[in-house]
Amino acid sequence: MTRVALLSRSANLSYFQPLLQGLAPELDVAVWPDPRSLSAEVAVCWNPPVGVYDDMPNLKLIHSIAAGVDNLLDGQRTRGLPVCRVVDPQLAQGMLQYVLWCVLTFHRKLDVALANQRSAQWQRPVQTPASQCRVGLMGLGELGRAIASVLPGLGYPVNGWSRTPRQIDGVRGYAGEAEFDAFLAHTDVLICLVPLTPATRGILNRRTFDALPAGAAVVNCGRGEHLVPADLIDALSRGQLRGAVLDVFAHEPLDPADPLWRTPGVIVTPHMATMPAPGTVAEQVVANIRRLGQGAALANAVDAARGY
Amino acid sequence: MTRVALLSRSANLSYFQPLLQGLAPELDVAVWPDPRSLSAEVAVCWNPPVGVYDDMPNLKLIHSIAAGVDNLLDGQRTRGLPVCRVVDPQLAQGMLQYVLWCVLTFHRKLDVALANQRSAQWQRPVQTPASQCRVGLMGLGELGRAIASVLPGLGYPVNGWSRTPRQIDGVRGYAGEAEFDAFLAHTDVLICLVPLTPATRGILNRRTFDALPAGAAVVNCGRGEHLVPADLIDALSRGQLRGAVLDVFAHEPLDPADPLWRTPGVIVTPHMATMPAPGTVAEQVVANIRRLGQGAALANAVDAARGY
Repeated sequence: MTRVALLSRSANLSYFQPLLQGLAPELDVAVWPDPRSLSAEVAVCWNPPVGVYDDMPNLKLIHSIAAGVDNLLDGQRTRGLPVCRVVDPQLAQGMLQYVLWCVLTFHRKLDVALANQRSAQWQRPVQTPASQCRVGLMGLGELGRAIASVLPGLGYPVNGWSRTPRQIDGVRGYAGEAEFDAFLAHTDVLICLVPLTPATRGILNRRTFDALPAGAAVVNCGRGEHLVPADLIDALSRGQLRGAVLDVFAHEPLDPADPLWRTPGVIVTPHMATMPAPGTVAEQVVANIRRLGQGAALANAVDAARGY
Repeated sequence: MTRVALLSRSANLSYFQPLLQGLAPELDVAVWPDPRSLSAEVAVCWNPPVGVYDDMPNLKLIHSIAAGVDNLLDGQRTRGLPVCRVVDPQLAQGMLQYVLWCVLTFHRKLDVALANQRSAQWQRPVQTPASQCRVGLMGLGELGRAIASVLPGLGYPVNGWSRTPRQIDGVRGYAGEAEFDAFLAHTDVLICLVPLTPATRGILNRRTFDALPAGAAVVNCGRGEHLVPADLIDALSRGQLRGAVLDVFAHEPLDPADPLWRTPGVIVTPHMATMPAPGTVAEQVVANIRRLGQGAALANAVDAARGY
């Protein structure tokens, strides 16, 4: 019998227990801080307690319940154990919808209309065609590619930036540090979708904002730690940026006293861009547990050194 | 030499003068209230003065500068003269973008996030797939069909309602008075795109709202006169509707004291959903003036009795 531990210090993962056992009645599922967790072979995690893997001598697999694994790896020793994430086609659909809303908000100046409504101001904005609103996707993984497959059909020019070069139909590709500034210079709405790694932490900073055309907009649906909030607030106040939509924050929920809630030009959403369906998460975790038992290759394993 | 009059009591149409003469230097273009207007053969109109056609003995063609002609016909005698409108493919693109934004706003509960931001409230909404958000298009003309060509590809079920039956791929069609309630019963986000006629004036009323599923949302990007504002405010306060986006109003600009600006659940935008490009308007008007001179069939003529 394989024991599975549901590990989180910030969320109650107990709703996965019946889902996992419904698919695999032979599993023994413990929810941390149940001490049985520490003898588990499989850790299913979201913000697991720091150092918890060190106390799990039988651990053979670390599994995320989402696409990101940064919260499973930061400050942790994984002893070379395999780390897997969830890849849910619906996840990409959700992100596509969210990003499309953000692009439409800035392209059609609905952010201005929303702000004007507060003071009952009727001002018809000058409109421009989609062909003049260049969308820059930072990150061309599953999520970025799903967005890139739809935006050009709606008339938006799409630029993509990735660590290594990627060829995607309808997307002008830029790669690596060397081409980052050229990518930014051709971007009116910047979408941050890169994984959180030491190389991308704080990448939404003053230098990046200043490399965008004046009046550009920024959307962060990566991780909160990608953004330097003070640099964003400064770039907005200087008019270098016209607006931002932020879905993720270094500390969630965002503190009610945080200035981002009230910075003009900033739309705050509560980490709602996308989320894998719990049933899909359970299916992929169970499938990987069975592969582990059979010695087969695991699905959606990440490179722990690279961080995604 | 053909004389053209630019007639409006609410907008300054003088910017069309150089556009028309640039395309057709032989035209003599007068801007109302220039008295030469009254001897024109062609009236190019947006909210023309009531009764003005009666004072134009040479009039042979009445042309709108937009897709709608209601403001050219209401309270006017047209003496059986041809009335034409502008059909601009970009117009449909603009409307598609606007409607897509509205659908995403309600489907993804971004209206709730925007409202929560005002009080710095972090509440992650429960999300549902696009397949559970049924969009109902009232009106299947060029604009409705452009929307219907995109929404199903994004996963939204689309119902369409039109005066006479229409077959559109991916759209479940309803037609006429007899099928209106069935159409409403299957609609979570109702989009009003019908022309304004005596039959559609006030169609967004209590009876219509109550025939929608509880918690539905309404988008009016038709004409202000389609909506009975008091019925909307009442349906929102009862929770029968969860929200509305309004782009058009019986009196524009909307009075700063109008309660719609401040009704919870209502997003007001300043008649910005779409607008034909002035260059396209000028091209279509000139082409119809030439057809008129040649006795050829006019493009985009409306049935004045039907009103569109």
